[in-house]
Amino acid sequence: MSPIRLYTYPESTSIAPHILLHEIGVDFETVDVTSAENGLEELRKLNPKARIPVLVIDNQVITESTAIMTAIAQLAPEKHLLGQSNLETVRVYEWLNWLSGTLHGHAWGMVLRPERYIDDVSMYDAIRAKGMLAAKEIYEMIEEQLEGVNAVGHGLTIVDPFLYVVYRWAASRGIVSKETHPKICQLVSELVKRPSVKRVIQAGFMTVIET
Amino acid sequence: MSPIRLYTYPESTSIAPHILLHEIGVDFETVDVTSAENGLEELRKLNPKARIPVLVIDNQVITESTAIMTAIAQLAPEKHLLGQSNLETVRVYEWLNWLSGTLHGHAWGMVLRPERYIDDVSMYDAIRAKGMLAAKEIYEMIEEQLEGVNAVGHGLTIVDPFLYVVYRWAASRGIVSKETHPKICQLVSELVKRPSVKRVIQAGFMTVIET
Repeated sequence: MSPIRLYTYPESTSIAPHILLHEIGVDFETVDVTSAENGLEELRKLNPKARIPVLVIDNQVITESTAIMTAIAQLAPEKHLLGQSNLETVRVYEWLNWLSGTLHGHAWGMVLRPERYIDDVSMYDAIRAKGMLAAKEIYEMIEEQLEGVNAVGHGLTIVDPFLYVVYRWAASRGIVSKETHPKICQLVSELVKRPSVKRVIQAGFMTVIET
Repeated sequence: MSPIRLYTYPESTSIAPHILLHEIGVDFETVDVTSAENGLEELRKLNPKARIPVLVIDNQVITESTAIMTAIAQLAPEKHLLGQSNLETVRVYEWLNWLSGTLHGHAWGMVLRPERYIDDVSMYDAIRAKGMLAAKEIYEMIEEQLEGVNAVGHGLTIVDPFLYVVYRWAASRGIVSKETHPKICQLVSELVKRPSVKRVIQAGFMTVIET
C-alpha cells in the first residue's frame, strides 16, 4: 500500500485534516506545496481545481475538505468522528457545508481573495469589507449555535478541527475573543490540549496563538 | 410523529431534496415560502440563515442541502443514496461540497446575487460576468469528471438530483448543451425519466425544459 499523503500549506484549511490524521494515529506524509520542489505543479496535476487540501490514499486522489475528513473518519470508525448517530452525522454535514461554503468560500474568500470577484483593483477594499461583514455575522451565528465544547454531540467530530481553523483566522484579526465569543473560545481551548494539535504546530504548519 | 416538511420555492436547489423525498417514497409536505402566508417569516424563524431548503423531520430543523439530502438518504439505507461503499460516500461529499460551495455558492451566487459582494450597483454587471466565467469553467470540469449516467458509481446518489438542478440553471442560459456537454446532458436525460422528477414538475416546483 502506498503511503497516505496530505497536500497542504501552513495556516490553511489543511490544518483540520492534518489534526485528524494524528487523531486516528495513522502513518502519513505531508507535502507543503509552497515549499516542495514543483509542489504547485504536482498539486495542479492531482487537483485541476488547484486547491488544497488534497489527500492521496490507496492511490485515490480526494479533494474538498469535507470529503477528505470523511475519508479520514472512515479509517477509524470506532472514534465516531462523523458523530454517534444518524442525526449527529447530519449535523456534521450541516456544519461543514456552512463553514466550508459560506464562511470559508464566501466570506473569507472575499476578504482573502478579492481578485476572484472583480478585476478592478480599486474595488478590492470594498469586496474585502463586505466579506468581513459577512464573516462577522457568521461568527455570531456560530456562537449562538454552539452548545458545548464539541460542535456536535459530546465527542470530537470532524467539525471541531475545522472550527478551529476558522477560529484562527478570526482570532488573529481580532474578530472573536473570549469576551465576545466565549463558546467558540472554550471549544478551541479544549481542542488545543490534544496532542494531535500540538503535533501539527511542531511540524511547522501553524503557529501557536493565544486561546 | 409530525409530518416531514420541506421548505422550498420553485426552481431552487430544493428541487434536489424534493426529488429524493419522492425517490424514497415517504409522506411529506412542501411549503413554498414565496407563496405561503407568512412563508418567509416562518423560514427565518426556522433558519436564521434565511436560506432554503429547510427540512423538518422528527421536530428537528435541518438546513444546508447536503445535510438535508443526507438525512433523506438515511431514511432508505437500502437505496444506497450515499453510495455503495465508503469510497463512494467520500465521492458523494466531494461532489456536493464542490457543487454546493463553489458552483452554487460562489459562481451562481455572483451571477444571481451580485448584491452579496458589493454595494455599488454599477459594479453588478462586472461581478455577474466574472461569476459566469467561473461557472463555465466548472461545467467544463464537471463534464471532464463524469464517467457515466450517475455521478458516483453505478446507481442514483444524492449527487445526481443536485447536478440536475445546476444543469437547469446552465441549460436555460445556453451554457451547456448536448453538443458541448454530452455527458451531463446524458445524465439528465436518464434522470428525468424517473417518476420522482415528474412529480416535482407536476407539483409546480419546476418547469419542463428540453433535455
